[in-house]
Amino acid sequence: MKKGKVYGVGVGPGDPELLTLKALRLLRAAPVVAYPAPEGGESLARRIVAGFLDPAQKEIAIEVPMVPDRDAPRAAYRRALPALAAELDAGRDVVILCLGDPFLYGSFMYLFALLAEDYRVEIVPGISSLTACAAVSRMPLAGSNDVLSILPAPMAEAELEACIAVCDAAAIIKLGRHFAKVRGLLDRLGLISRARYVARATLPGEQVLPLSEIDANAEVPYFAMILLHKRGAAWMDIRGASFETALKGASSG
Amino acid sequence: MKKGKVYGVGVGPGDPELLTLKALRLLRAAPVVAYPAPEGGESLARRIVAGFLDPAQKEIAIEVPMVPDRDAPRAAYRRALPALAAELDAGRDVVILCLGDPFLYGSFMYLFALLAEDYRVEIVPGISSLTACAAVSRMPLAGSNDVLSILPAPMAEAELEACIAVCDAAAIIKLGRHFAKVRGLLDRLGLISRARYVARATLPGEQVLPLSEIDANAEVPYFAMILLHKRGAAWMDIRGASFETALKGASSG
Repeated sequence: MKKGKVYGVGVGPGDPELLTLKALRLLRAAPVVAYPAPEGGESLARRIVAGFLDPAQKEIAIEVPMVPDRDAPRAAYRRALPALAAELDAGRDVVILCLGDPFLYGSFMYLFALLAEDYRVEIVPGISSLTACAAVSRMPLAGSNDVLSILPAPMAEAELEACIAVCDAAAIIKLGRHFAKVRGLLDRLGLISRARYVARATLPGEQVLPLSEIDANAEVPYFAMILLHKRGAAWMDIRGASFETALKGASSG
Repeated sequence: MKKGKVYGVGVGPGDPELLTLKALRLLRAAPVVAYPAPEGGESLARRIVAGFLDPAQKEIAIEVPMVPDRDAPRAAYRRALPALAAELDAGRDVVILCLGDPFLYGSFMYLFALLAEDYRVEIVPGISSLTACAAVSRMPLAGSNDVLSILPAPMAEAELEACIAVCDAAAIIKLGRHFAKVRGLLDRLGLISRARYVARATLPGEQVLPLSEIDANAEVPYFAMILLHKRGAAWMDIRGASFETALKGASSG
Protein backbone atom coordinates (compact mmCIF):
# COMPACT_ATOMS: atom_id res chain seq x y z
CA MET A 1 0.00 0.00 0.00
CA LYS A 2 1.18 3.48 -0.80
CA LYS A 3 2.09 5.34 2.36
CA GLY A 4 0.33 8.57 3.24
CA LYS A 5 2.04 11.93 2.92
CA VAL A 6 2.85 14.40 5.68
CA TYR A 7 2.05 18.08 5.23
CA GLY A 8 3.67 20.46 7.69
CA VAL A 9 1.26 23.36 7.34
CA GLY A 10 1.89 26.83 8.74
CA VAL A 11 -1.38 28.31 10.04
CA GLY A 12 -0.01 31.78 10.74
CA PRO A 13 0.03 33.84 13.92
CA GLY A 14 -3.62 33.73 15.00
CA ASP A 15 -6.10 35.38 12.62
CA PRO A 16 -7.74 32.50 10.68
CA GLU A 17 -7.84 34.73 7.58
CA LEU A 18 -4.04 34.62 7.49
CA LEU A 19 -4.16 30.98 6.41
CA THR A 20 -2.96 30.52 2.84
CA LEU A 21 -5.24 29.14 0.14
CA LYS A 22 -2.96 26.11 -0.01
CA ALA A 23 -3.17 25.49 3.73
CA LEU A 24 -6.96 25.63 3.56
CA ARG A 25 -7.14 23.24 0.59
CA LEU A 26 -4.84 20.70 2.25
CA LEU A 27 -6.59 21.02 5.59
CA ARG A 28 -10.01 20.37 4.06
CA ALA A 29 -8.74 17.36 2.10
CA ALA A 30 -6.84 15.70 4.95
CA PRO A 31 -8.34 12.61 6.58
CA VAL A 32 -6.10 13.19 9.62
CA VAL A 33 -5.15 16.47 11.31
CA ALA A 34 -2.47 16.55 14.04
CA TYR A 35 -1.35 19.47 16.17
CA PRO A 36 0.69 20.25 19.28
CA ALA A 37 -1.30 21.06 22.41
CA PRO A 38 -0.09 22.09 25.86
CA GLU A 39 -0.62 19.29 28.39
CA GLY A 40 -4.24 19.51 29.49
CA GLY A 41 -4.79 22.72 27.48
CA GLU A 42 -6.16 23.93 24.19
CA SER A 43 -4.06 23.89 21.02
CA LEU A 44 -3.74 27.41 19.61
CA ALA A 45 -2.90 25.98 16.19
CA ARG A 46 -6.15 24.00 16.24
CA ARG A 47 -8.16 26.97 17.48
CA ILE A 48 -6.98 29.03 14.50
CA VAL A 49 -8.37 26.52 11.99
CA ALA A 50 -11.33 25.28 14.08
CA GLY A 51 -13.84 26.89 11.72
CA PHE A 52 -12.47 24.87 8.80
CA LEU A 53 -12.40 21.42 10.43
CA ASP A 54 -14.91 18.69 9.66
CA PRO A 55 -16.13 16.33 12.42
CA ALA A 56 -15.35 13.43 10.07
CA GLN A 57 -11.65 14.25 10.22
CA LYS A 58 -9.56 12.29 12.69
CA GLU A 59 -7.65 14.54 15.07
CA ILE A 60 -4.42 13.71 16.85
CA ALA A 61 -3.41 16.06 19.66
CA ILE A 62 0.30 15.87 20.43
CA GLU A 63 0.56 16.77 24.10
CA VAL A 64 3.65 18.84 24.77
CA PRO A 65 4.63 19.66 28.36
CA MET A 66 5.04 23.42 28.82
CA VAL A 67 8.23 23.35 30.85
CA PRO A 68 11.46 25.26 30.25
CA ASP A 69 13.31 22.05 29.40
CA ARG A 70 14.60 21.76 25.87
CA ASP A 71 14.35 17.98 25.85
CA ALA A 72 10.70 17.78 26.90
CA PRO A 73 9.20 18.72 23.51
CA ARG A 74 11.49 16.30 21.71
CA ALA A 75 10.38 13.45 23.94
CA ALA A 76 6.75 14.43 23.38
CA TYR A 77 7.15 14.34 19.62
CA ARG A 78 8.90 10.99 19.82
CA ARG A 79 5.97 9.62 21.82
CA ALA A 80 3.55 10.88 19.15
CA LEU A 81 5.37 9.08 16.37
CA PRO A 82 3.57 5.69 16.50
CA ALA A 83 0.11 7.28 16.23
CA LEU A 84 1.19 9.36 13.22
CA ALA A 85 3.01 6.42 11.62
CA ALA A 86 -0.08 4.21 11.95
CA GLU A 87 -2.12 6.65 9.85
CA LEU A 88 0.62 7.14 7.28
CA ASP A 89 1.30 3.41 6.97
CA ALA A 90 -2.42 2.89 6.35
CA GLY A 91 -2.14 5.24 3.38
CA ARG A 92 -3.75 8.26 4.99
CA ASP A 93 -2.30 11.74 4.54
CA VAL A 94 -1.67 13.70 7.73
CA VAL A 95 -1.74 17.49 7.97
CA ILE A 96 0.33 18.67 10.93
CA LEU A 97 -0.64 22.18 12.01
CA CYS A 98 2.17 24.57 12.88
CA LEU A 99 1.76 28.00 14.48
CA GLY A 100 3.30 30.65 12.27
CA ASP A 101 5.71 29.03 9.84
CA PRO A 102 6.87 25.40 10.24
CA PHE A 103 10.56 26.12 9.66
CA LEU A 104 11.02 29.40 11.55
CA TYR A 105 11.46 28.40 15.20
CA GLY A 106 8.61 25.93 14.83
CA SER A 107 8.62 22.76 16.87
CA PHE A 108 7.49 20.99 13.68
CA MET A 109 11.16 20.69 12.79
CA TYR A 110 11.46 17.93 15.41
CA LEU A 111 8.68 15.98 13.74
CA PHE A 112 10.26 16.67 10.37
CA ALA A 113 13.51 15.13 11.58
CA LEU A 114 11.59 12.08 12.82
CA LEU A 115 9.40 11.59 9.75
CA ALA A 116 11.32 12.76 6.69
CA GLU A 117 13.40 9.63 6.31
CA ASP A 118 10.45 7.25 6.11
CA TYR A 119 7.65 9.36 4.64
CA ARG A 120 7.11 12.02 2.02
CA VAL A 121 6.92 15.38 3.81
CA GLU A 122 5.88 18.64 2.19
CA ILE A 123 6.34 21.96 3.97
CA VAL A 124 3.70 24.63 3.43
CA PRO A 125 5.02 27.99 4.61
CA GLY A 126 2.84 30.14 6.85
CA ILE A 127 2.67 33.78 7.89
CA SER A 128 5.30 34.12 10.59
CA SER A 129 4.75 36.06 13.79
CA LEU A 130 7.72 38.15 12.65
CA THR A 131 5.92 39.73 9.71
CA ALA A 132 2.57 39.75 11.53
CA CYS A 133 4.11 41.75 14.40
CA ALA A 134 5.64 44.19 11.92
CA ALA A 135 2.27 44.61 10.19
CA VAL A 136 0.30 45.35 13.36
CA SER A 137 3.04 47.61 14.71
CA ARG A 138 2.95 49.55 11.42
CA MET A 139 6.75 49.57 11.21
CA PRO A 140 8.75 47.85 8.46
CA LEU A 141 11.13 45.21 9.79
CA ALA A 142 13.99 45.99 7.43
CA GLY A 143 14.57 47.51 4.04
CA SER A 144 17.31 48.23 1.55
CA ASN A 145 20.58 46.80 2.89
CA ASP A 146 19.57 46.60 6.55
CA VAL A 147 20.79 43.59 8.52
CA LEU A 148 17.86 42.04 10.39
CA SER A 149 18.58 39.56 13.18
CA ILE A 150 16.17 37.31 14.99
CA LEU A 151 17.39 36.91 18.54
CA PRO A 152 15.89 34.47 21.04
CA ALA A 153 15.62 36.16 24.43
CA PRO A 154 16.89 33.11 26.39
CA MET A 155 20.40 33.80 24.98
CA ALA A 156 23.06 35.03 27.38
CA GLU A 157 23.10 38.81 27.71
CA ALA A 158 26.64 39.16 26.34
CA GLU A 159 25.71 37.20 23.22
CA LEU A 160 22.61 39.30 22.72
CA GLU A 161 24.72 42.43 23.00
CA ALA A 162 27.25 41.15 20.44
CA CYS A 163 24.45 40.41 17.97
CA ILE A 164 22.75 43.75 18.50
CA ALA A 165 26.08 45.48 17.89
CA VAL A 166 26.29 44.30 14.26
CA CYS A 167 22.65 44.48 13.11
CA ASP A 168 20.48 47.39 11.96
CA ALA A 169 17.21 45.91 13.16
CA ALA A 170 16.27 43.01 15.38
CA ALA A 171 13.30 40.97 16.49
CA ILE A 172 13.88 39.69 20.00
CA ILE A 173 11.59 36.69 20.38
CA LYS A 174 10.50 34.24 23.08
CA LEU A 175 10.52 37.00 25.70
CA GLY A 176 8.53 35.44 28.55
CA ARG A 177 10.57 35.34 31.74
CA HIS A 178 13.59 36.88 29.95
CA PHE A 179 11.86 40.22 29.46
CA ALA A 180 13.56 42.09 32.32
CA LYS A 181 17.02 41.02 31.10
CA VAL A 182 16.33 42.18 27.53
CA ARG A 183 14.73 45.44 28.58
CA GLY A 184 17.68 46.13 30.91
CA LEU A 185 20.15 45.48 28.13
CA LEU A 186 18.38 47.79 25.66
CA ASP A 187 18.23 50.45 28.37
CA ARG A 188 21.96 50.16 29.02
CA LEU A 189 22.63 50.41 25.24
CA GLY A 190 20.47 53.55 24.97
CA LEU A 191 18.09 51.79 22.58
CA ILE A 192 14.83 51.77 24.56
CA SER A 193 13.39 54.62 22.49
CA ARG A 194 14.11 52.61 19.34
CA ALA A 195 12.14 49.57 20.42
CA ARG A 196 8.53 48.51 20.50
CA TYR A 197 6.77 45.67 22.23
CA VAL A 198 4.25 43.48 20.40
CA ALA A 199 2.13 40.72 21.92
CA ARG A 200 -0.76 38.59 20.57
CA ALA A 201 -0.45 40.04 17.07
CA THR A 202 -3.68 39.55 15.07
CA LEU A 203 -5.37 37.96 18.14
CA PRO A 204 -7.84 39.41 20.64
CA GLY A 205 -5.87 41.37 23.23
CA GLU A 206 -3.22 42.42 20.69
CA GLN A 207 -0.72 44.86 22.20
CA VAL A 208 1.63 47.27 20.42
CA LEU A 209 3.47 49.67 22.71
CA PRO A 210 6.70 51.63 22.86
CA LEU A 211 9.01 49.48 24.99
CA SER A 212 9.47 52.43 27.36
CA GLU A 213 5.84 52.02 28.42
CA ILE A 214 6.29 48.45 29.66
CA ASP A 215 7.54 48.11 33.19
CA ALA A 216 10.78 46.16 33.59
CA ASN A 217 9.07 43.76 35.99
CA ALA A 218 6.01 43.17 33.81
CA GLU A 219 4.94 39.60 33.15
CA VAL A 220 4.92 39.14 29.39
CA PRO A 221 3.87 36.15 27.27
CA TYR A 222 6.41 33.71 25.83
CA PHE A 223 5.32 34.65 22.31
CA ALA A 224 5.69 38.42 22.85
CA MET A 225 8.50 40.10 20.92
CA ILE A 226 10.46 43.33 20.79
CA LEU A 227 11.07 44.96 17.43
CA LEU A 228 14.18 47.13 17.43
CA HIS A 229 15.35 49.64 14.82
CA LYS A 230 18.77 50.92 15.82
CA ARG A 231 18.67 53.91 13.53
CA GLY A 232 16.24 55.75 11.29
CA ALA A 233 15.89 53.23 8.49
CA ALA A 234 16.26 53.92 4.77
CA TRP A 235 12.51 53.87 4.13
CA MET A 236 12.05 56.76 6.54
CA ASP A 237 14.11 59.20 4.51
CA ILE A 238 11.57 59.59 1.76
CA ARG A 239 9.61 62.28 3.49
CA GLY A 240 12.20 63.64 5.82
CA ALA A 241 10.21 62.37 8.80
CA SER A 242 12.25 61.48 11.83
CA PHE A 243 12.14 58.02 13.29
CA GLU A 244 10.58 59.30 16.50
CA THR A 245 7.80 61.04 14.55
CA ALA A 246 7.16 57.82 12.69
CA LEU A 247 7.04 55.81 15.92
CA LYS A 248 4.51 58.25 17.28
CA GLY A 249 2.42 58.00 14.11
CA ALA A 250 2.64 54.24 14.24
CA SER A 251 1.41 54.12 17.82
CA SER A 252 -1.64 56.21 17.10
CA GLY A 253 -2.35 54.43 13.81
CA MET B 1 -16.32 62.49 1.20
CA LYS B 2 -14.66 59.71 3.16
CA LYS B 3 -11.24 58.94 1.78
CA GLY B 4 -10.44 55.47 0.50
CA LYS B 5 -8.20 53.11 2.44
CA VAL B 6 -4.84 51.68 1.37
CA TYR B 7 -4.13 47.98 1.80
CA GLY B 8 -0.49 46.91 1.45
CA VAL B 9 -1.06 43.27 0.62
CA GLY B 10 1.69 40.65 0.58
CA VAL B 11 1.11 38.21 -2.28
CA GLY B 12 3.85 35.77 -1.32
CA PRO B 13 6.83 34.49 -3.28
CA GLY B 14 5.20 33.26 -6.49
CA ASP B 15 2.76 30.36 -6.09
CA PRO B 16 -0.74 31.95 -6.24
CA GLU B 17 -1.92 29.38 -3.67
CA LEU B 18 0.37 31.04 -1.11
CA LEU B 19 -1.93 34.06 -0.99
CA THR B 20 -3.73 34.36 2.32
CA LEU B 21 -7.52 34.22 2.56
CA LYS B 22 -7.43 37.86 3.66
CA ALA B 23 -5.34 38.94 0.68
CA LEU B 24 -7.78 37.22 -1.68
CA ARG B 25 -10.83 38.79 -0.01
CA LEU B 26 -9.35 42.31 -0.13
CA LEU B 27 -8.10 41.86 -3.69
CA ARG B 28 -11.54 40.77 -4.92
CA ALA B 29 -13.27 43.66 -3.16
CA ALA B 30 -10.88 46.41 -4.28
CA PRO B 31 -12.02 48.84 -6.98
CA VAL B 32 -8.36 49.75 -7.63
CA VAL B 33 -5.30 47.48 -7.68
CA ALA B 34 -1.79 48.95 -7.90
CA TYR B 35 1.54 47.16 -8.22
CA PRO B 36 5.19 47.82 -9.02
CA ALA B 37 6.34 46.80 -12.50
CA PRO B 38 9.79 46.99 -14.05
CA GLU B 39 9.97 49.69 -16.72
CA GLY B 40 8.50 48.18 -19.88
CA GLY B 41 8.16 44.75 -18.26
CA GLU B 42 5.62 42.53 -16.54
CA SER B 43 4.86 42.90 -12.84
CA LEU B 44 5.57 39.64 -11.01
CA ALA B 45 3.25 40.69 -8.18
CA ARG B 46 0.42 41.15 -10.70
CA ARG B 47 1.21 37.86 -12.44
CA ILE B 48 0.83 35.99 -9.12
CA VAL B 49 -2.74 37.26 -8.64
CA ALA B 50 -3.71 37.50 -12.33
CA GLY B 51 -6.20 34.63 -11.98
CA PHE B 52 -8.09 36.51 -9.27
CA LEU B 53 -8.39 39.90 -10.99
CA ASP B 54 -11.61 41.19 -12.55
CA PRO B 55 -11.52 43.28 -15.77
CA ALA B 56 -13.78 45.80 -14.03
CA GLN B 57 -11.02 46.61 -11.54
CA LYS B 58 -8.88 49.63 -12.30
CA GLU B 59 -5.18 48.79 -12.40
CA ILE B 60 -2.32 51.18 -11.71
CA ALA B 61 1.13 49.96 -12.70
CA ILE B 62 3.90 51.78 -10.85
CA GLU B 63 6.83 51.69 -13.24
CA VAL B 64 10.09 51.24 -11.33
CA PRO B 65 13.41 51.52 -13.15
CA MET B 66 15.54 48.40 -12.59
CA VAL B 67 18.82 50.14 -11.95
CA PRO B 68 21.25 49.65 -9.05
CA ASP B 69 20.52 53.15 -7.76
CA ARG B 70 18.88 53.35 -4.36
CA ASP B 71 17.12 56.61 -5.16
CA ALA B 72 15.47 55.47 -8.39
CA PRO B 73 12.68 53.42 -6.76
CA ARG B 74 11.93 56.24 -4.32
CA ALA B 75 11.53 58.71 -7.17
CA ALA B 76 9.29 56.23 -9.00
CA TYR B 77 7.01 55.85 -6.00
CA ARG B 78 6.87 59.59 -5.54
CA ARG B 79 5.79 59.95 -9.18
CA ALA B 80 3.02 57.37 -8.61
CA LEU B 81 1.60 59.26 -5.66
CA PRO B 82 -0.83 61.60 -7.53
CA ALA B 83 -2.53 58.70 -9.35
CA LEU B 84 -2.98 56.79 -6.08
CA ALA B 85 -4.11 59.90 -4.20
CA ALA B 86 -6.74 60.67 -6.86
CA GLU B 87 -8.40 57.28 -6.27
CA LEU B 88 -8.18 57.56 -2.49
CA ASP B 89 -9.48 61.13 -2.44
CA ALA B 90 -12.44 59.96 -4.54
CA GLY B 91 -13.26 57.47 -1.77
CA ARG B 92 -11.99 54.36 -3.52
CA ASP B 93 -9.93 51.76 -1.63
CA VAL B 94 -6.62 50.80 -3.23
CA VAL B 95 -4.95 47.41 -2.82
CA ILE B 96 -1.22 47.69 -3.41
CA LEU B 97 0.33 44.33 -4.26
CA CYS B 98 3.67 43.49 -2.64
CA LEU B 99 5.88 40.53 -3.51
CA GLY B 100 6.48 38.40 -0.44
CA ASP B 101 5.71 40.44 2.66
CA PRO B 102 5.21 44.25 2.54
CA PHE B 103 7.47 45.03 5.51
CA LEU B 104 10.34 42.58 4.99
CA TYR B 105 12.63 44.27 2.45
CA GLY B 106 9.58 45.23 0.40
CA SER B 107 9.61 48.44 -1.61
CA PHE B 108 6.07 49.03 -0.31
CA MET B 109 7.66 50.67 2.70
CA TYR B 110 8.45 53.69 0.52
CA LEU B 111 4.79 54.02 -0.41
CA PHE B 112 3.84 53.49 3.22
CA ALA B 113 6.05 56.41 4.22
CA LEU B 114 4.40 58.55 1.54
CA LEU B 115 0.79 57.59 2.25
CA ALA B 116 0.47 56.81 5.97
CA GLU B 117 0.22 60.40 7.09
CA ASP B 118 -2.74 61.30 4.87
CA TYR B 119 -4.61 58.02 4.46
CA ARG B 120 -5.57 54.97 6.47
CA VAL B 121 -3.13 52.19 5.61
CA GLU B 122 -3.50 48.55 6.63
CA ILE B 123 -0.68 46.07 6.19
CA VAL B 124 -1.58 42.49 5.30
CA PRO B 125 1.41 40.22 5.87
CA GLY B 126 2.39 37.76 3.15
CA ILE B 127 4.48 34.62 2.89
CA SER B 128 8.06 35.86 2.71
CA SER B 129 10.63 34.42 0.31
CA LEU B 130 12.60 33.58 3.47
CA THR B 131 10.17 30.92 4.68
CA ALA B 132 9.29 29.84 1.15
CA CYS B 133 12.97 29.16 0.39
CA ALA B 134 13.30 27.19 3.63
CA ALA B 135 10.21 25.14 2.74
CA VAL B 136 11.37 24.18 -0.76
CA SER B 137 14.92 23.53 0.44
CA ARG B 138 13.50 21.21 3.11
CA MET B 139 15.74 22.70 5.78
CA PRO B 140 14.49 24.61 8.83
CA LEU B 141 15.76 28.18 8.99
CA ALA B 142 16.32 28.25 12.73
CA GLY B 143 15.08 26.57 15.86
CA SER B 144 15.44 26.65 19.61
CA ASN B 145 17.78 29.51 20.56
CA ASP B 146 19.50 29.87 17.17
CA VAL B 147 20.32 33.40 16.04
CA LEU B 148 19.08 33.89 12.47
CA SER B 149 20.35 36.87 10.50
CA ILE B 150 19.11 38.21 7.21
CA LEU B 151 22.05 39.66 5.35
CA PRO B 152 21.74 41.66 2.12
CA ALA B 153 24.52 40.60 -0.26
CA PRO B 154 25.36 44.18 -1.36
CA MET B 155 26.91 44.76 2.10
CA ALA B 156 30.68 45.16 2.31
CA GLU B 157 32.48 41.85 2.72
CA ALA B 158 33.94 42.76 6.12
CA GLU B 159 30.48 43.61 7.47
CA LEU B 160 29.06 40.36 6.12
CA GLU B 161 31.87 38.49 7.83
CA ALA B 162 31.23 40.24 11.16
CA CYS B 163 27.54 39.35 11.01
CA ILE B 164 28.19 35.74 10.05
CA ALA B 165 30.61 35.45 12.99
CA VAL B 166 27.86 35.99 15.58
CA CYS B 167 24.89 34.13 14.06
CA ASP B 168 23.95 30.45 13.95
CA ALA B 169 22.10 30.62 10.67
CA ALA B 170 21.77 33.20 7.93
CA ALA B 171 19.80 33.99 4.83
CA ILE B 172 21.95 35.97 2.41
CA ILE B 173 19.53 37.77 0.13
CA LYS B 174 19.63 39.99 -2.99
CA LEU B 175 22.51 37.96 -4.42
CA GLY B 176 22.49 39.02 -8.10
CA ARG B 177 25.83 40.48 -9.08
CA HIS B 178 27.17 40.06 -5.52
CA PHE B 179 27.15 36.26 -5.75
CA ALA B 180 30.89 35.78 -6.42
CA LYS B 181 31.80 37.94 -3.41
CA VAL B 182 29.49 36.02 -1.07
CA ARG B 183 30.53 32.61 -2.35
CA GLY B 184 34.19 33.59 -2.00
CA LEU B 185 33.64 34.73 1.58
CA LEU B 186 31.85 31.53 2.60
CA ASP B 187 34.63 29.52 0.94
CA ARG B 188 37.28 31.42 2.89
CA LEU B 189 35.34 30.85 6.13
CA GLY B 190 35.08 27.11 5.44
CA LEU B 191 31.28 27.30 5.32
CA ILE B 192 30.54 26.30 1.71
CA SER B 193 29.44 22.80 2.74
CA ARG B 194 26.99 24.37 5.20
CA ALA B 195 25.21 26.48 2.59
CA ARG B 196 22.57 25.96 -0.01
CA TYR B 197 21.45 28.06 -2.92
CA VAL B 198 17.74 28.67 -3.61
CA ALA B 199 16.25 30.53 -6.57
CA ARG B 200 12.70 31.04 -7.87
CA ALA B 201 11.17 29.28 -4.85
CA THR B 202 7.62 28.02 -5.62
CA LEU B 203 7.92 29.29 -9.23
CA PRO B 204 8.63 27.40 -12.47
CA GLY B 205 12.39 26.89 -12.73
CA GLU B 206 12.79 26.60 -8.94
CA GLN B 207 16.37 25.69 -7.99
CA VAL B 208 17.67 24.21 -4.74
CA LEU B 209 21.32 23.20 -4.79
CA PRO B 210 24.26 22.81 -2.44
CA LEU B 211 26.22 26.04 -2.83
CA SER B 212 29.29 23.98 -3.78
CA GLU B 213 27.54 23.04 -7.03
CA ILE B 214 27.18 26.63 -8.22
CA ASP B 215 30.17 28.06 -10.03
CA ALA B 216 31.67 31.20 -8.51
CA ASN B 217 31.17 33.05 -11.79
CA ALA B 218 27.59 31.95 -12.31
CA GLU B 219 25.00 34.60 -13.13
CA VAL B 220 22.31 34.37 -10.48
CA PRO B 221 19.02 36.25 -10.11
CA TYR B 222 18.65 39.23 -7.78
CA PHE B 223 16.02 37.33 -5.79
CA ALA B 224 18.18 34.21 -5.30
CA MET B 225 19.35 33.54 -1.74
CA ILE B 226 21.82 31.45 0.18
CA LEU B 227 20.67 29.66 3.32
CA LEU B 228 23.50 29.01 5.73
CA HIS B 229 23.58 26.81 8.84
CA LYS B 230 26.89 27.24 10.57
CA ARG B 231 26.55 24.13 12.68
CA GLY B 232 24.28 21.13 13.04
CA ALA B 233 21.25 22.79 14.49
CA ALA B 234 19.31 21.73 17.56
CA TRP B 235 16.50 20.15 15.56
CA MET B 236 18.96 17.76 13.97
CA ASP B 237 19.89 16.04 17.23
CA ILE B 238 16.64 14.20 17.59
CA ARG B 239 17.65 11.27 15.47
CA GLY B 240 21.40 11.53 15.69
CA ALA B 241 21.54 12.33 11.97
CA SER B 242 24.48 14.43 10.92
CA PHE B 243 23.94 17.75 9.22
CA GLU B 244 25.58 16.49 6.03
CA THR B 245 23.23 13.47 5.90
CA ALA B 246 20.31 15.80 6.33
CA LEU B 247 21.55 18.11 3.57
CA LYS B 248 21.86 15.09 1.27
CA GLY B 249 18.35 13.94 2.15
CA ALA B 250 17.04 17.44 1.62
CA SER B 251 18.59 17.68 -1.84
CA SER B 252 17.03 14.43 -3.01
CA GLY B 253 13.69 15.16 -1.37
